Amino acid sequence: MLPFARVSIIGLGLIGSSIAHAVRATMPTVALVGHDADPIVRARARELGFCDDIADSVGAAVTDADLVVLCVPVGAIAKVVGELAADLPQDAILSDVGSSKAGVLAAMREHFPDRQIVPAHPVAGTEFSGPDAGFATLFKGRWCILTPPGDADPAAVVRVSTFWERLGAQVEIMDAKHHDLVLAVTSHLPHLIAYTIVGTASDLEEVTQSEVIKYSAGGFRDFTRIAASDPTMWRDVFLSNKDAVLEMLQRFTEDLTALQRAIRWGDGDTLFELFTRTRAVRRSIVEQGQDDGSADFGRAHK
Amino acid sequence: MLPFARVSIIGLGLIGSSIAHAVRATMPTVALVGHDADPIVRARARELGFCDDIADSVGAAVTDADLVVLCVPVGAIAKVVGELAADLPQDAILSDVGSSKAGVLAAMREHFPDRQIVPAHPVAGTEFSGPDAGFATLFKGRWCILTPPGDADPAAVVRVSTFWERLGAQVEIMDAKHHDLVLAVTSHLPHLIAYTIVGTASDLEEVTQSEVIKYSAGGFRDFTRIAASDPTMWRDVFLSNKDAVLEMLQRFTEDLTALQRAIRWGDGDTLFELFTRTRAVRRSIVEQGQDDGSADFGRAHK
Repeated sequence: MLPFARVSIIGLGLIGSSIAHAVRATMPTVALVGHDADPIVRARARELGFCDDIADSVGAAVTDADLVVLCVPVGAIAKVVGELAADLPQDAILSDVGSSKAGVLAAMREHFPDRQIVPAHPVAGTEFSGPDAGFATLFKGRWCILTPPGDADPAAVVRVSTFWERLGAQVEIMDAKHHDLVLAVTSHLPHLIAYTIVGTASDLEEVTQSEVIKYSAGGFRDFTRIAASDPTMWRDVFLSNKDAVLEMLQRFTEDLTALQRAIRWGDGDTLFELFTRTRAVRRSIVEQGQDDGSADFGRAHK
Repeated sequence: MLPFARVSIIGLGLIGSSIAHAVRATMPTVALVGHDADPIVRARARELGFCDDIADSVGAAVTDADLVVLCVPVGAIAKVVGELAADLPQDAILSDVGSSKAGVLAAMREHFPDRQIVPAHPVAGTEFSGPDAGFATLFKGRWCILTPPGDADPAAVVRVSTFWERLGAQVEIMDAKHHDLVLAVTSHLPHLIAYTIVGTASDLEEVTQSEVIKYSAGGFRDFTRIAASDPTMWRDVFLSNKDAVLEMLQRFTEDLTALQRAIRWGDGDTLFELFTRTRAVRRSIVEQGQDDGSADFGRAHK
């Protein structure tokens, strides 16, 4: 039994196009309609052919849908919801893939107080963007967090959950506010720090840009991957999950200050104790299949 | 023409054992003697057989050498140099692989004011440690920085340079102090920040350890790899390169504070401008062959 027969994907970047590829691969009879605000992306999506149809407006994309998945930056959700308001079928379930959830849910409910809304966040991605970046196995083995409001129809939640499981994800249900706190530490803060350090390294006078790039294999290059993520998406994440990000940032800064002090005073024991403890976290992540256990993430050593 | 006929490797962890494997692969007639302070590591190195001989003391390991490479944590360099003082042949070149160079050079010169000292730093590594972690291609395409003192014999510098080129590295010569500044930003600061954020995430009360691990694919897991690096090595790096690390940390903190302010005040333009700029750095690193250009570092997506 397929959870949905007609799925609309609004926004055809990395996540939207990956959902389309994954639906094609795992539920080939599902009718897929896509739309993107950018006509260049729509044209490219038509060439790539990962949807049955690419509609020129949000309204036209959703008229027949029983599931609508918004795959736009979270700052664009309110606008898109407004655009599809007139055309969303009464029994369609509205979902999204945004990286922050409390604000997204509020924006959706404002326009659709009486519809079934089941927000989702697949915790998966790469540093690439756009309709060419998607692939069918992006969600395989990753977690997808659903944050339905307390009064959501359980049957709607089950259908969205089944949809993501069919795409290869493991599903977890969580309160939107708790989601935003968890993701602030596992995703938003790491991105903010990566963006910062890459910026810091680019602005130095004593060390040239070319030196930073040449010797990046000492650790820096690991940060540049996530600092190459989509700028619009990430701007919106930080603005929409402000409180949780600032809270986590405050804790991080305190911890960094403590280490700074340990270095200044030559307190090797404090450093050693932390550096030993952090190894165990890596081990758990690899054991639970959330990262590649081979050296250097499995980068090729030719 | 081989640059050296008899090479001694003191310290048989990731880097020492990788040098041995790489010498075997690229200069098979070179006689290799190894030593490690830990008898368990010596026993394992004998089993693995990557050296012709494993000596039980530093002195015995170097008596016949024309190149001695110290592959110990930088905090142990002074002690090891003291131990080999009586046995180092007069014409042997003394080198190392430490991640900070000014302090190492000073320690070596104190014991050997009249010997040829050519310190080296191969900018390569993985998150794994110990004699089983080494492999022959670790240095391939990576940079090796030599920091000879101003009065070093150019012939000695050329020989050590040739040695590293034979192992697959590209060689650069640099002043020790400048090296320490460059590496503070491309390697030491990234490690410090990665250790910090993994610690911060482990200490939260509102978010469980299990949630941090489950949702780590949102960015956090990238930091855990380098936060799994050898604790002793990294404690010593921060203590020995204190001034440059504190300087870079100060700049990073200023930049992070500016972003924090931008988030608090909803200044999306500042965020977007930085996030766009950092993408270009990633592109250069990939173009110059210092990282894998495939999505997610080339991690397997099964």
